[in-house]
Amino acid sequence: MKNIITISREFGSGGRTIAKEAAQRLGYAFYDKELIGKIAEESGLSREYIEAHGEHAPGRTYFGYAFVGRDAAGNSVGDYLWKVQREIIEDLAEKGNCVIVGRCADYILRKRTDCLQVFIHADMEKKKERIVNLYGETGASPEKRLKEKNKTRAMNYKYYTDRTWGMAGNYHVSLDSGLLGEERCVDLIVGLAKDL
Amino acid sequence: MKNIITISREFGSGGRTIAKEAAQRLGYAFYDKELIGKIAEESGLSREYIEAHGEHAPGRTYFGYAFVGRDAAGNSVGDYLWKVQREIIEDLAEKGNCVIVGRCADYILRKRTDCLQVFIHADMEKKKERIVNLYGETGASPEKRLKEKNKTRAMNYKYYTDRTWGMAGNYHVSLDSGLLGEERCVDLIVGLAKDL
Repeated sequence: MKNIITISREFGSGGRTIAKEAAQRLGYAFYDKELIGKIAEESGLSREYIEAHGEHAPGRTYFGYAFVGRDAAGNSVGDYLWKVQREIIEDLAEKGNCVIVGRCADYILRKRTDCLQVFIHADMEKKKERIVNLYGETGASPEKRLKEKNKTRAMNYKYYTDRTWGMAGNYHVSLDSGLLGEERCVDLIVGLAKDL
Repeated sequence: MKNIITISREFGSGGRTIAKEAAQRLGYAFYDKELIGKIAEESGLSREYIEAHGEHAPGRTYFGYAFVGRDAAGNSVGDYLWKVQREIIEDLAEKGNCVIVGRCADYILRKRTDCLQVFIHADMEKKKERIVNLYGETGASPEKRLKEKNKTRAMNYKYYTDRTWGMAGNYHVSLDSGLLGEERCVDLIVGLAKDL
């Protein structure tokens, strides 16, 4: 039995929905937006700042981000947010029976043996279809939005973990939700969490 | 039902054994060493050359490889081997009901909708354990052998496909055989091949 499941996911892959359903089926707590509330409380940073930067720093202006707004010890607000996020994720894992979405939780909890690490991805066509259905048309092309959002997730992950986001080796199981479908992904994750 | 399964695998992950077992369970043809025979027949190159270079070119001397031994059109022996390999893999896929191990088959067959693409990996400790048990101790440290072999696979893949070897997005499902165990990997692959 794995008491903790981390779900990392490409934007547009439906990973969050899969994670929520898996948590319900297992009777586990589900941390996604809930995590943002906890981080806000703990850090004093606004929910808006955390939503914008928690997974997306250093963001588009990588070099700008790296050198501005640091304190005397060289820590940026992003570093502070990372530290608070990490501590909260470690605490939640300690309590167990939970599914945590994103926020480098796979890396933060990589040494725990009671943790199943999952990555959900899909091809561009399926992701486009999904975000257009869910969020409707917007100014930017869906493909551009997807690429930008997933690129900043990858940069944030690289910056704080020094690993490449989306490498199969970072996770115990990686699934293409476009081919497999959301329901089958949930079944596989729930089955593995129970079996292992 | 997926009629073709490509299995890419880290050296030491047991991916070949998993592929063979999955082929038996599905009643599919299994192409690994068998593929080398076919390539030798078709290309006129020796089995030894193909074993050494088919997945390991451009090898350690990347730049040396890129510029020496080319014909007037700029094609190296490695390029010729790649072309023959690709054609044979396309022919096998056309016949269907097969499991193909390695040799960039995932990339070569990426546009087919009757193909399930799998990647098998494991952490360093499990891979070390496996190769020491299977092949015994050798001069080089097991970790060094593993890193070198997997590095050349990654370089070969990058050279011919321009993709990063081991990125989850290249495959429909990626499994950590160290955590899941070989038998469970076989079950999952066979189940997905039948269901999808």
